[in-house]
Amino acid sequence: MNIDTTRPLVIVGGSDAGISAGLRARELRPDLTPLLIVADAYPNYSICGLPFFLSGETPRASMLAHRTREDLEAAGLELLLEHEVTAIDPVAKTVRAEPTDGSPAVVIGYENVVLGTGAEPQRPPIRGLENEGVHVLHSMAQAFAVHDAVTSSYVQRVLIVGAGYIGLELADGLRHRGLEVSVVERLGQVFPTVDEEFAATIEDELRSHGVEVATGVTVSEIACEGGRLVVHADDGVARVADLVVVATGVRPVTDLAVAAGARTGVRGAVVVDRAMRTGVEGVFAAGDMVETWHALLGKATYLPLGTTSHKQGRVAGANAVGVAAEFAGSLGSQSVKLFDLVVARTGLRHDEAEAEGFAPVTVEIEADDHKAYYPGASKIRLRLTADGADGRLLGVQLLGRYGAEVSKRCDVLAVAIQLGLTVDQVSDLDLTYTPPLSSPWDPVAQVAQAWRRGR
Amino acid sequence: MNIDTTRPLVIVGGSDAGISAGLRARELRPDLTPLLIVADAYPNYSICGLPFFLSGETPRASMLAHRTREDLEAAGLELLLEHEVTAIDPVAKTVRAEPTDGSPAVVIGYENVVLGTGAEPQRPPIRGLENEGVHVLHSMAQAFAVHDAVTSSYVQRVLIVGAGYIGLELADGLRHRGLEVSVVERLGQVFPTVDEEFAATIEDELRSHGVEVATGVTVSEIACEGGRLVVHADDGVARVADLVVVATGVRPVTDLAVAAGARTGVRGAVVVDRAMRTGVEGVFAAGDMVETWHALLGKATYLPLGTTSHKQGRVAGANAVGVAAEFAGSLGSQSVKLFDLVVARTGLRHDEAEAEGFAPVTVEIEADDHKAYYPGASKIRLRLTADGADGRLLGVQLLGRYGAEVSKRCDVLAVAIQLGLTVDQVSDLDLTYTPPLSSPWDPVAQVAQAWRRGR
Repeated sequence: MNIDTTRPLVIVGGSDAGISAGLRARELRPDLTPLLIVADAYPNYSICGLPFFLSGETPRASMLAHRTREDLEAAGLELLLEHEVTAIDPVAKTVRAEPTDGSPAVVIGYENVVLGTGAEPQRPPIRGLENEGVHVLHSMAQAFAVHDAVTSSYVQRVLIVGAGYIGLELADGLRHRGLEVSVVERLGQVFPTVDEEFAATIEDELRSHGVEVATGVTVSEIACEGGRLVVHADDGVARVADLVVVATGVRPVTDLAVAAGARTGVRGAVVVDRAMRTGVEGVFAAGDMVETWHALLGKATYLPLGTTSHKQGRVAGANAVGVAAEFAGSLGSQSVKLFDLVVARTGLRHDEAEAEGFAPVTVEIEADDHKAYYPGASKIRLRLTADGADGRLLGVQLLGRYGAEVSKRCDVLAVAIQLGLTVDQVSDLDLTYTPPLSSPWDPVAQVAQAWRRGR
Repeated sequence: MNIDTTRPLVIVGGSDAGISAGLRARELRPDLTPLLIVADAYPNYSICGLPFFLSGETPRASMLAHRTREDLEAAGLELLLEHEVTAIDPVAKTVRAEPTDGSPAVVIGYENVVLGTGAEPQRPPIRGLENEGVHVLHSMAQAFAVHDAVTSSYVQRVLIVGAGYIGLELADGLRHRGLEVSVVERLGQVFPTVDEEFAATIEDELRSHGVEVATGVTVSEIACEGGRLVVHADDGVARVADLVVVATGVRPVTDLAVAAGARTGVRGAVVVDRAMRTGVEGVFAAGDMVETWHALLGKATYLPLGTTSHKQGRVAGANAVGVAAEFAGSLGSQSVKLFDLVVARTGLRHDEAEAEGFAPVTVEIEADDHKAYYPGASKIRLRLTADGADGRLLGVQLLGRYGAEVSKRCDVLAVAIQLGLTVDQVSDLDLTYTPPLSSPWDPVAQVAQAWRRGR
């Protein structure tokens, strides 16, 4: 494979954005064969599934593949695995791919290229991150290393630095495996993507399942002492562990895009327009490496989420084969299951809305997920934020039991927010009802009505 | 109580529409005390909950009350229970209420009246409906009669005429109680609110839980022979039962509205505008007795549903105290749980869309409710109907396991349909994802993408 074989579409990266771009391009142009260059041997793996592989709930890593290699090839993609793209020449329109086995590099010409190089774990300023037994979790190789450790007999006690959703899912997963787990978070609350009122309940849930939680504690050093790891922090406590996983967020991987001439913006992510163009001729980018257009704010943010990567990849793939498409934007919609609890949010939190110049009013209610006279009802908490001036929906957070249709209730309001509805219009939505599943006014309508009454 | 005490707002009927009207009126005008006249002693009872009372899952009938009498009074409503309104004088602006205990009638003046007289079970042309042991199910009194029968020792075998949602929920409920249950339906499929493809699966679910099902069979006579009921039908089979429940749909109760001068339209329901005015000065009507404005068709239909009654009642209550409000319309959104299955629909079925002049195209897919690598995934079937001309969403039907967030997924698309979205716009919706609860493309986005590919 060399420069002579110029490809109409080259895609760098085999995760959500890259795969989506390739599939969409092929769907629109069945005569083209996109070439997908993947740095490892695991194209289209669900990175979001890693906590469940580590917990043992997903017994084999291969189950994490959204599609097998054969599926992808059958869908019309050509795969070049275990090749890392190390250089791009936007004038000659070539990429240089180095095989991970050390054999000679290949240079591949492209008409258009979609970069989906993703994000990598942030390395916080902690001494001793290089010590054996200290891991970050993002790639499959990193996941295998953690898997080997947590399934070994020597690991009994795991300390997780960071209480974001990866850290907490991992805490859940490793408790599932029977390990002792503690989580140390620098901020004053766990899961800072939701308000502190919800964070307190999440902390309770973690503790009731045996997870030790420390918030407002900054780790300074992870030392190797007497064969175990000792985690030193600013609360003066030295925490001992057999394994430390650092999960303190991610940062975009932009070297290649920058080398091509792309600019970076919010949080160092690559600046793209809503067609996922970098501004460099023939170079598109999508996923965790780029800025995220926010549907409500109407400006670029950085919200690396798998759903967004899929959407942006799809848009990039279309434009890269000449079919106009535009990314509609993100609301930061996300959900997480932690033990028996589901937490979901979409749109802006109260403080985010305030910082953006809205005049937010937030109301919280507790509602039955279904009529209490039918067995199994449980409470859902809903926090609705809307603009006090015009009642426009700005955001919602929900918290309830797994099985209580919490996440899709969040989605009902995500649609309403994305389409610019007011709280009053939520009462007009014709939603389904049957006593085992809802109330005549679904909780999402109840919180809208409470917002109107309560302010 | 007599004509001297003219009330600003009188409400006739204590079910969904009437209660909603009263609560909303009071919310907007805390200085007014709406008078609610209720024919029986059970205001604000959940009629939708009757199958669960009869199954034993809701052990006491009193649990079916959305609010107690005390709740309602605390909310500012005055209640006149066990009084049937038998006459209305729209010129004098009075209603005549007859106590059910036979004591003298009272005449009450009103400035505005909201009628919420509901619907009553249709009595199909079957001989012997008057026989002992033959029941219809709608009011609390009727429910108590059926409850007495199914909890007695002499009832072992129940035959249900009609396989609509009440008939099927009742079949489920009585199997739960351990009775032998058979269902006889005149049409060629059960649950005609969804397509036959789904009906076949529902029939399988019923049979696998021991319900005998006969479709395309018209009952002609229910005879009393030797102390048991014998149900004769046009398939020549004489079915024996200890109890027969007739659940063949409802018809609007309109006598009072018609007496006041209101017109009737679709299916004999009272014609109202979107402010729930009957056209008779000072007379509003809402709920199962009135026509239903269809949000997608932009015309009146008849879709008696509890959710709609709540919305219409709320609108009527507002307008009756001088606050302008308009019913946004129904999409016929509904869901039902039958044994382990949940079925939900919103908008138009394919055949309904065709009959209304659309050029519908319907696509069905099967999707995992969540990533299959996380335990407990199950398949959801989704049938999406959209206009072949412009891709505008027209309707969706979903079928899956209880717990698979089927009903709220229907609601996500209900919002999309109500707001006039196209199938392509569904892919742009920013919905939540976590492997235990969804996929990066939620099943609702998957079916939209399949529709686009498949046609």
